Amino acid sequence: MRDVYVIGIGQTPIGEWWDKGVRQLAYDALHDATEDSGLEWPDALYVGNMMSSRLSGQAHLGALIADFAGWRGIEAVTVEAACASGGAAFQAGVRAVASGMVEVAAVVGVEKMTDGIGGGVISGLATAADADYEVIQGVTFVALNALIMQRYMYEHNLKQEAFAAFCINAHHNAVNNPNAMFRKEITTRAYLNAHMISPPVNLLDSSPICDGAAAVLLGTKDILRDLPEAIPVRILASTNAIDSVAIAERHDLLGMEAIRNSAQKAYQTARLAPTNIDVFELHDAFSIMAAVSLEASGFAERGRGTFLASEGEISLTGRIPVSTMGGLKARGHPVGATGVYQIVDAVTQLRGTADKNQVKDATIAMAQNVGGAGTTVITHILARE
Amino acid sequence: MRDVYVIGIGQTPIGEWWDKGVRQLAYDALHDATEDSGLEWPDALYVGNMMSSRLSGQAHLGALIADFAGWRGIEAVTVEAACASGGAAFQAGVRAVASGMVEVAAVVGVEKMTDGIGGGVISGLATAADADYEVIQGVTFVALNALIMQRYMYEHNLKQEAFAAFCINAHHNAVNNPNAMFRKEITTRAYLNAHMISPPVNLLDSSPICDGAAAVLLGTKDILRDLPEAIPVRILASTNAIDSVAIAERHDLLGMEAIRNSAQKAYQTARLAPTNIDVFELHDAFSIMAAVSLEASGFAERGRGTFLASEGEISLTGRIPVSTMGGLKARGHPVGATGVYQIVDAVTQLRGTADKNQVKDATIAMAQNVGGAGTTVITHILARE
Repeated sequence: MRDVYVIGIGQTPIGEWWDKGVRQLAYDALHDATEDSGLEWPDALYVGNMMSSRLSGQAHLGALIADFAGWRGIEAVTVEAACASGGAAFQAGVRAVASGMVEVAAVVGVEKMTDGIGGGVISGLATAADADYEVIQGVTFVALNALIMQRYMYEHNLKQEAFAAFCINAHHNAVNNPNAMFRKEITTRAYLNAHMISPPVNLLDSSPICDGAAAVLLGTKDILRDLPEAIPVRILASTNAIDSVAIAERHDLLGMEAIRNSAQKAYQTARLAPTNIDVFELHDAFSIMAAVSLEASGFAERGRGTFLASEGEISLTGRIPVSTMGGLKARGHPVGATGVYQIVDAVTQLRGTADKNQVKDATIAMAQNVGGAGTTVITHILARE
Repeated sequence: MRDVYVIGIGQTPIGEWWDKGVRQLAYDALHDATEDSGLEWPDALYVGNMMSSRLSGQAHLGALIADFAGWRGIEAVTVEAACASGGAAFQAGVRAVASGMVEVAAVVGVEKMTDGIGGGVISGLATAADADYEVIQGVTFVALNALIMQRYMYEHNLKQEAFAAFCINAHHNAVNNPNAMFRKEITTRAYLNAHMISPPVNLLDSSPICDGAAAVLLGTKDILRDLPEAIPVRILASTNAIDSVAIAERHDLLGMEAIRNSAQKAYQTARLAPTNIDVFELHDAFSIMAAVSLEASGFAERGRGTFLASEGEISLTGRIPVSTMGGLKARGHPVGATGVYQIVDAVTQLRGTADKNQVKDATIAMAQNVGGAGTTVITHILARE
């Protein structure tokens, strides 16, 4: 197995891109990543996308985007794992290079959710849940997270305000990220006054409906030798573990077994422990997911995730900084793109180029992308060499 | 890079499965493949599927199917490349095992097209084409193939009957395949009297709308050592090349550059030539695709593909047997499953278990899965060891 390095990163600002289609957004991010790497022609493209087929009437994004980028003749496919599609595409790129079958792999995560405003996006997101046993009952994706949050508050005897620190932290970190969707601070008062969407999930517990694309280029040490200015970031672990799609089928709803399995496999592969992680880009699609991710990934005891947040330990200077560029909550969550944005943010930290948001001496970062309500969990550990 | 072997195969009969959903169909094929292999627990599952998100309201098939198969905790994702999704999922499995990151990979291709009868399936298939430049003009997928066939007949001065031998051969081979959808012979007369769908593509030029699933298990030589009764079939080459999605963007419409590139890369990797191939499972979604596939893959001169068929050279005893178990035309074409069915058919030939359809002394087989009208072309060469 060959070692794999991130050799280029790119991204579009996240927002409502009414004037750009899926292929243009993807191209913009890929263009930045190729410029950043100094390489122009990858051998393969892996696209992370969840909903283009439903929302834009366009499947077959691998070939569509590769051709639009000027790379006719290369290999290209789309990888889908609901909201973990970006992480899954990144993993496909890592595998391809590690196997020796591909020298330089491009990965792009892209989602254009505004094409589905008017209703399509809600039913589109619900395809991540179990159509036959959950969605048929009228459950939306927000409602599933609300059920988990309700249970969490009941079991751990917590009130809504326990979750405020997650979105305050995310919004605070987004202020200095020019690619973030919501670049403004919020307060506990604003959080507690936010509109309720599906109790107890309120508007500020939730990541936005948005458009965006993020890209990386992957290669080997041999490729890096030709790029003397590149800062080498190596992939130490790339893991994926699944749980049931329907949350009623879980052995332990709040235990989040897939998160635990995915993180444990990653720690084992990298021969590291949670204490070695300097930055954790977690999947804060909803505040409740941030809390259970911290717990199941080994950063907090069961039921203590919100305390880690409220005690300031998730801030840029805390014990385990999360959502360092705004996270899904404030940078934004264009679902199939998110896993690649997480990698881009992690690499930015490891390169030491996060500017005002730089986590001091960050050398090891973990990015964790979650599809469904804790169903598919893809964890990557990266290190600056 | 590690050598990768097919260690188990399974499939459902292809037809209209009104009483089974996507997960059940996939499970049936996976169950057969695990029984065939003697292994019960893969480390990863790669699902090939194109339209479940649109037709069945269910994305996230990786986790859904892995969990239904009883494999909670493993890695699972979906791979999509339009009608080449099955081949793309198989390639993902090969990569995962070759890289050393996965020991045993399961691959399943599954499609339930009858969920879309009433219109959804036609617009679903059209998502393989370019939404902004083709589909918006009202072009369906059949119409795109009709444009190519029309041009082919004009350039090479051929009449409709030139294509008859492709579907006669496919139907003939399907008669003895218990998993085929159309197990009946057809005649030139029937072909010439078939309903016209989109001139010159008639009903018998076209593969059917249908449901089905096919599965394989992949592993290394080490795994094979524990399975003394297994017949080793090794993957010699696994390649993917793309062309533009919109056919108007092609440099050479009938040249099918992606087919040529994909096949050439496969021959180079395997250090073989077309003359070494004993069986060719090609992508006969339409008769025209069979003709151009034979040409661009090096089995016939430009414009001579139909002659290879009419001269009997594609039959089980001919120079290059194609569609040996009925092909897409008569075995059936549940789109995201097809690439895996092709592998299953190729392995059946290489194992020498194709019964009445056995190609004598078949030791090397090529399977070629095409997404879009020649857009994404995934070629595998397999050999009995």
